[in-house]
Amino acid sequence: MPILNKDMTLCISLAARPSNIGTRFHNYLYEQLGLNYVYKAFAPADLAQAVAGIRGLPIRGAAVSMPYKEEVIALVDRMDPSAAAIDSVNTIVNDDGVLTAYNTDYLAIARLLADHEVPASSSVLLRGSGGMAKAVAAALRDAGFADVTIVARNEATGRSLADLYGFNWAPEPGEATADLLINVTPLGMAGPDEDAQSFDDETIAAAETVFDVVALPSETPLIRAARGAGKKVITGAEVIAIQAEEQFVLYTGVRPTPEQVREASEFSRS
Amino acid sequence: MPILNKDMTLCISLAARPSNIGTRFHNYLYEQLGLNYVYKAFAPADLAQAVAGIRGLPIRGAAVSMPYKEEVIALVDRMDPSAAAIDSVNTIVNDDGVLTAYNTDYLAIARLLADHEVPASSSVLLRGSGGMAKAVAAALRDAGFADVTIVARNEATGRSLADLYGFNWAPEPGEATADLLINVTPLGMAGPDEDAQSFDDETIAAAETVFDVVALPSETPLIRAARGAGKKVITGAEVIAIQAEEQFVLYTGVRPTPEQVREASEFSRS
Repeated sequence: MPILNKDMTLCISLAARPSNIGTRFHNYLYEQLGLNYVYKAFAPADLAQAVAGIRGLPIRGAAVSMPYKEEVIALVDRMDPSAAAIDSVNTIVNDDGVLTAYNTDYLAIARLLADHEVPASSSVLLRGSGGMAKAVAAALRDAGFADVTIVARNEATGRSLADLYGFNWAPEPGEATADLLINVTPLGMAGPDEDAQSFDDETIAAAETVFDVVALPSETPLIRAARGAGKKVITGAEVIAIQAEEQFVLYTGVRPTPEQVREASEFSRS
Repeated sequence: MPILNKDMTLCISLAARPSNIGTRFHNYLYEQLGLNYVYKAFAPADLAQAVAGIRGLPIRGAAVSMPYKEEVIALVDRMDPSAAAIDSVNTIVNDDGVLTAYNTDYLAIARLLADHEVPASSSVLLRGSGGMAKAVAAALRDAGFADVTIVARNEATGRSLADLYGFNWAPEPGEATADLLINVTPLGMAGPDEDAQSFDDETIAAAETVFDVVALPSETPLIRAARGAGKKVITGAEVIAIQAEEQFVLYTGVRPTPEQVREASEFSRS
């Protein structure tokens, strides 16, 4: 029987449509690591008052999801470079009333590029121009990637993102090839676009590494085709697990083992 | 393993020095009754921001303990008569952002006087003049008791409490007797005054009913002496259990059985 105690530290999430994934991921690891923490998802009635509650109750940390990632900037005290680089917050840490905002999506992408040993000299096609495209573009720039083309049908957002980081822009993939292909569009995501493959087989054949930020399903048409072609792949499930791991470390100061992260990630999706 | 889910309703307590009693009482009953609720105690960093968090997250209900019972009045939207009668709040209920303040100590005392069938024609000696004395005095007045003497060494608080409800005041019990004796001082409480008996044996002998608001220990010297003399007794443990039951009903809309309340109360103190 789940009996909480008064000394437990609370962490939360704030999202218009909460899922159970974060709640299950964090509570699983608290249990495994014997930490006196508890995690609960909220759909806030009022964002400013919810953030006041983080200070006032107090709450140790909060994940921030759509549609609050930008609105919350005005409500925190400090922006970590990970959030400042993309003007987008997905994590708040409360240190004795001082709220610092982070973006662990940015941190996760930076770590995945390093862990998979993708050389900064690689040419890159980055398909998409939304919030996650900004995190990827900033992580690429900050890791020293220079030969990057943003592929986005929307010229306004695509060109502005490319200009922000000194990259190129193209409306369609066309005949272009690159060493690293990255998809941050909904193409291949469970739903209306689930059969779409965001880069074609010829483009995949010419690449070294294929990175799909789409996490549901865990194997998108792009990842399946890249695996079939024997390419290195980086999946959206890795992004989700690592960004959650980085949140976990920020909240607790404890880094779980890769095996524990894998188990928690599997549990969170079961 | 305690795995919470995103749809759980959160209730909390706000106290400078939280105990585990409320957390254990409420979570035990949530589990027994299959309610998708969770309860957690907080020592707020800032009361106004904590109350903002009740609205913003949102949180369904909050118990309010020392030293916030009066300060919180300015932060709620509505005062239930139970709280307005004594200018003291121990419970906040959040109905879609509208915060209503209650005092379930008052409600518990009123219910205990009724359940134990203490006639309103009884003469009463009420020893003490603090916050709980106010709740008892208001409940007595509202139940129609008129022959009440507040016994309190502190003339300022004792006389002012007596005047507020149209009762008498005396500095010491002296030779006075009454049908109903009520102790709301710390006399008999675990700690420096644990051996003190708040009314003497002769006064007990002349009474019908003895009511001790002190809850720790569950049998105070006063209750032990009253039981030994064959008197009807009302204990502080009953006050705590019933005030918590009334909070539970306000938060959930579900009334547990007396057996469930007894079990939860025992569990909360174990």
